[in-house]
Amino acid sequence: MSERYERGLAALTALNGPDGVAVIDKLSEFAPAFGEQLVEFIFGDVYTRPQLDLRTRQIVTISALAAMGFALPQLEIHVRGGLRAGLTREELTEIIHHVAAYSGFPAALNAMAVVRRVCAEAEAAAADTH
Amino acid sequence: MSERYERGLAALTALNGPDGVAVIDKLSEFAPAFGEQLVEFIFGDVYTRPQLDLRTRQIVTISALAAMGFALPQLEIHVRGGLRAGLTREELTEIIHHVAAYSGFPAALNAMAVVRRVCAEAEAAAADTH
Amino acid sequence: MSERYERGLAALTALNGPDGVAVIDKLSEFAPAFGEQLVEFIFGDVYTRPQLDLRTRQIVTISALAAMGFALPQLEIHVRGGLRAGLTREELTEIIHHVAAYSGFPAALNAMAVVRRVCAEAEAAAADTH
Amino acid sequence: MSERYERGLAALTALNGPDGVAVIDKLSEFAPAFGEQLVEFIFGDVYTRPQLDLRTRQIVTISALAAMGFALPQLEIHVRGGLRAGLTREELTEIIHHVAAYSGFPAALNAMAVVRRVCAEAEAAAADTH
Amino acid sequence: MSERYERGLAALTALNGPDGVAVIDKLSEFAPAFGEQLVEFIFGDVYTRPQLDLRTRQIVTISALAAMGFALPQLEIHVRGGLRAGLTREELTEIIHHVAAYSGFPAALNAMAVVRRVCAEAEAAAADTH
Amino acid sequence: MSERYERGLAALTALNGPDGVAVIDKLSEFAPAFGEQLVEFIFGDVYTRPQLDLRTRQIVTISALAAMGFALPQLEIHVRGGLRAGLTREELTEIIHHVAAYSGFPAALNAMAVVRRVCAEAEAAAADTH
Repeated sequence: MSERYERGLAALTALNGPDGVAVIDKLSEFAPAFGEQLVEFIFGDVYTRPQLDLRTRQIVTISALAAMGFALPQLEIHVRGGLRAGLTREELTEIIHHVAAYSGFPAALNAMAVVRRVCAEAEAAAADTH
Repeated sequence: MSERYERGLAALTALNGPDGVAVIDKLSEFAPAFGEQLVEFIFGDVYTRPQLDLRTRQIVTISALAAMGFALPQLEIHVRGGLRAGLTREELTEIIHHVAAYSGFPAALNAMAVVRRVCAEAEAAAADTH
Repeated sequence: MSERYERGLAALTALNGPDGVAVIDKLSEFAPAFGEQLVEFIFGDVYTRPQLDLRTRQIVTISALAAMGFALPQLEIHVRGGLRAGLTREELTEIIHHVAAYSGFPAALNAMAVVRRVCAEAEAAAADTH
Repeated sequence: MSERYERGLAALTALNGPDGVAVIDKLSEFAPAFGEQLVEFIFGDVYTRPQLDLRTRQIVTISALAAMGFALPQLEIHVRGGLRAGLTREELTEIIHHVAAYSGFPAALNAMAVVRRVCAEAEAAAADTH
Repeated sequence: MSERYERGLAALTALNGPDGVAVIDKLSEFAPAFGEQLVEFIFGDVYTRPQLDLRTRQIVTISALAAMGFALPQLEIHVRGGLRAGLTREELTEIIHHVAAYSGFPAALNAMAVVRRVCAEAEAAAADTH
Repeated sequence: MSERYERGLAALTALNGPDGVAVIDKLSEFAPAFGEQLVEFIFGDVYTRPQLDLRTRQIVTISALAAMGFALPQLEIHVRGGLRAGLTREELTEIIHHVAAYSGFPAALNAMAVVRRVCAEAEAAAADTH
């Protein structure tokens, strides 16, 4: 395991939690080199650079994924990561609302449905804990 | 002129300066209702909502435009707006670098060329002023 | 409720019927300002302009959504709206067939599957009524 | 020359005029089979089907190309074809305005710039004739 | 049935097997002319040209579909066709891995999930046979 | 300079020649970390894996870039790389022709114009040499 992989796995775990790690584990079982290079490059090389803080990186990721229109499974994981990185439901909703002006309403509607589902799960989980 | 339009024009002017206003003026000369609704909706309705500050909104806009790949004229205007909203050259570069992981390198390379050009112009203009 | 919203809701109801209104209600429960601005802008500002009739607007919407490839939930609602606006099954099928030349066959195949499903539902509902 | 090619070339000439034929000639000089199959399929097979009239087909083509964002050279040719098929400047402008709601403003702004340029050329040509 | 259709159906059957033919049959029941022109153009005109062998054509198709992001149902059929055309699981995985650099990781992750599912089915079917 | 960077630079130089290296140098002058990670990841990690030979990798890259529609500057560099990797003009033309069925004709037309220009340059350069 390279130093980049270890650093990437730590960043991935901090950001995406067990869900994110499970996605990568399933991927790596089938395509080990692809899973390894994904962790090394995205999380080991890019995410750990100090030029942007984690909350800002989640804003960038969520804006890009929402605008792309077809990346809903990845958006779901990164909206969960956004909540972990301190973005509120109001901020997440507002990011998608803002993206609508640039990507059009269909991409934003699909993204908003993901944000709604993730927030509902997070609220249900929080209610369970109390 | 509606109240939404006045509010939008003020936001557009603050963000994009004379360049942005000139783009809209040229557009509105040809397609008045389209120019009007663009200013009202994007700048009057969306940009002025208090849920995200202007600097964050520029991060969202630039991330979305970079990821879309074909929106380089709009990206150019909004990178200039990003500088006005307080984003540094280092932050702008890092946003595009981060987007590469999600949109792929070609979209990021085209976006980075726009950021390079806008930053060079801004530095030349700053040098002229001194 | 703004005048634009009322006008938009009337247009949305006429075009998309209870299905369309239910989608917006669910959206607005989660993200009220986004749902409101969507109704005001798309249906209050754009759809009610007299420069194109409703049937033509549905041709534009369906062509754009089919070409974009990832907007299938929105396409489904607007194909139903197309039937309400007087487009026949033959015309809807032909629009998607035509779009294939520009967007490629995969986008058109996914769109055609939506048209098939919506037309089958409409025919089943018509059979029930008789 | 196949019967499909002859039929397609006639349709292409009627729709796009000498400009469109010149584009295909230049293409066919380099890639003959590609140019031939393009004319046969798009213009020989699709455009000549009677299920939609030519004016409606241009609305479909222009809506799809505008929504795709990167197809500006093709949009330019088909906006000229739209004028030939009887679409007015007001209708062309309104189609792009409408598409903005679905594809977002950047794609629509790029498309509107094409419509503006083509309409200006057509008006200049009409002024020359008188 | 045109000669082009017969040639196309033979190519489609050889490449995609009963699955691919079933998809086209279902499509043609609803939209006969669309199904017919798809078979004639893609499989009768393009796939049977001798300039590229079938294995190379599947590499082109799979690379294009993976990069487009939203074409997963078509990718599934063509990954099966890729196995039939002699691509190994290792080659299929590597194509998607390579595409990630150009289309970004989300498109590649969705494509890799399709390759994983198709390969698992193929291995289960092979195990059943023995 | 990391071992990955050295390996990547060697692969980039072999594939894209002085043009490709000049693009990266210009990029790295402005955004050094981005240029470095691009070389390390795409050329050091991905391109040097032995699972696909270089000619096949260029087929994958060119198919993906052509299908994406907006990546013409990158396509130009990689068509030159394709010629260096042994693809003929006939094969390059056929790849784009094939992609048209999946991405639609506009993306393919823009890509074919790039292939035409690169092949014309290569033929002019070859004529100069003799």
